[in-house]
Amino acid sequence: MRATFMHEAGDVRVQDAPDPVIERPTDAIVRVVRSCVCGSDLHPYRTMASAAGPVPMGHEFLGVIEEIGSDVSGLRRGDLVVAPFAYADNTCAFCREGLQTSCPDGGFFAAGIGGAQAEAVRVPQAAGTLVRLPVAEDSTLLPSLLTLADVYGTGHHAARQARVTRRTTVTVIGDGAVGLMAVLSARQLGAERIILMGRHRSRTDLGRFFGATDVVAERGEEGIEKVRELTGGQGTHTVLEAVGHLPAYEMAVGAVRAGGVISRVGVPQYEAAPVGFTSLFGPNVTLTGGPAPVRAYIDELLPAVLDGTVEPGRVFDRTVSLDEVPEAYRAMDRRESLKVLVAP
Amino acid sequence: MRATFMHEAGDVRVQDAPDPVIERPTDAIVRVVRSCVCGSDLHPYRTMASAAGPVPMGHEFLGVIEEIGSDVSGLRRGDLVVAPFAYADNTCAFCREGLQTSCPDGGFFAAGIGGAQAEAVRVPQAAGTLVRLPVAEDSTLLPSLLTLADVYGTGHHAARQARVTRRTTVTVIGDGAVGLMAVLSARQLGAERIILMGRHRSRTDLGRFFGATDVVAERGEEGIEKVRELTGGQGTHTVLEAVGHLPAYEMAVGAVRAGGVISRVGVPQYEAAPVGFTSLFGPNVTLTGGPAPVRAYIDELLPAVLDGTVEPGRVFDRTVSLDEVPEAYRAMDRRESLKVLVAP
Repeated sequence: MRATFMHEAGDVRVQDAPDPVIERPTDAIVRVVRSCVCGSDLHPYRTMASAAGPVPMGHEFLGVIEEIGSDVSGLRRGDLVVAPFAYADNTCAFCREGLQTSCPDGGFFAAGIGGAQAEAVRVPQAAGTLVRLPVAEDSTLLPSLLTLADVYGTGHHAARQARVTRRTTVTVIGDGAVGLMAVLSARQLGAERIILMGRHRSRTDLGRFFGATDVVAERGEEGIEKVRELTGGQGTHTVLEAVGHLPAYEMAVGAVRAGGVISRVGVPQYEAAPVGFTSLFGPNVTLTGGPAPVRAYIDELLPAVLDGTVEPGRVFDRTVSLDEVPEAYRAMDRRESLKVLVAP
Repeated sequence: MRATFMHEAGDVRVQDAPDPVIERPTDAIVRVVRSCVCGSDLHPYRTMASAAGPVPMGHEFLGVIEEIGSDVSGLRRGDLVVAPFAYADNTCAFCREGLQTSCPDGGFFAAGIGGAQAEAVRVPQAAGTLVRLPVAEDSTLLPSLLTLADVYGTGHHAARQARVTRRTTVTVIGDGAVGLMAVLSARQLGAERIILMGRHRSRTDLGRFFGATDVVAERGEEGIEKVRELTGGQGTHTVLEAVGHLPAYEMAVGAVRAGGVISRVGVPQYEAAPVGFTSLFGPNVTLTGGPAPVRAYIDELLPAVLDGTVEPGRVFDRTVSLDEVPEAYRAMDRRESLKVLVAP
């Protein structure tokens, strides 16, 4: 089959690879119908050393089950399914608590499994991981349904971990797909004041469509000042950080209200950060977040996608074929595209 | 009057100082009946430069109102009162939310106000700050009541912010007075498994009295291993960090269960710390805590102190006169005393 590999920063190739096969009785093989490129794929695209490659890419997909292991119950060949970006058994203590990203039998796609920017992918723990979609393979809902694999669930995780309610003011840092999904999720949880920090007009316009009430284009100290101006000097009860770079963390610290919550879902590209008296401790600010246990949210988010109440698929502004995936990386890296759908 | 000043690390003096006077109509002057030395007083005792001094010391006290400003309602001369270590108006939006440490009209004792390791102290925002105690000045409950000024409320804050319940396992890092109060508070919130990390037998024995079910004397990687052994390899749902040094933070990161909460109440003696993928983000660990809004908890904690259900005053293992305060610092610094009561 054809599959995408990152060889080093800036070098993404679609090349021949062995067809995935059932390796364990809990596996399934899924023919990919739609996948996409994630903002987090851009981190290695900008920094990966050649010694670390080649790495199979892609962790967001929906597709049709082609083969199924002998221990996989509840699914059958021909089912259209979506997969969360982390596979999990969905039966252990962590999964039952809704923390599938910490499942001892779980893991992330691409790390030794194979990537989803490919014609097919092996799905470990298929029974716990895959969720059947009650639509046809040519449904116009596929883009929105694909967001359940990662960005919508990740935005939702940011808002949930921050305990967003009608009474909480919200700042969302980042106008990428996850930031926009955080806006949508905060709105769904009832937030009435949502400040979106982003500089790209077409994206922040989409953010307003999803529920942002204010847009702050400034960054750094200026951006913090602007959020404080909009909130009577106090900052917002919650800050949803959907970027992952240290300056975004620092903006979050500056924009959060005393007693508030910073909820991170942008994968941190730093290890150490300010957490002492003047940043988090003095004002009793809570820092939360992490990789979203997307599987825990699919059942909850699916109905509004199916009935068209929400249209998270609007984050896709371009569609490419599998062979065009390197161009998708290039376009997202240069911010010419917000998020690129791949139809193999 | 006589009052305590820190001149530089290791140099604490009790010396003559002007009697405090009403400066604003919202002030009261309290004659100190009991005060004490705090673990956080030991941070400057170990590190303060002479250029930063002299600084008036002490932020935990109970006493009798001697003078009262014209705008102070609900209190009168002669009342025995306890003060939280942060004064606050107790009427603003932050105070109504229970975050008196962020009151715009509030502040900390000793910072430009005067310290409580003294014969008397001026209390700003007296109506919002002082809580009347329904006991006599010679009550045997005074030591336990004094813990409401800081250490008991601070331990309670750690447990509350961590959302300790019957179902959460707990690690408490630090066998100082705050750590022991965190044990007591976790127990009061229903926790059935409380692991106390501390090396001082007399203190950890007191910790067992307050509710600790396990004691881990090891520190660093060894200590983390021990907590993990005690919890099936997983760590505890909550870690209450009552020390404030970076190694304690690192132990907290190592001892917390995926999806769990680290709640800090030890004043951080560091600004930057690990918060990236391998520490907090990957396992979806929440970091919370800060200076305790003790005022918010006094009403809740007072009844069990008054009826003797709890005896937080057991953290005091020595009593000195005001002139002996420098010896109290020395004894606590050398860990000869857990916490020293001052009876001026």
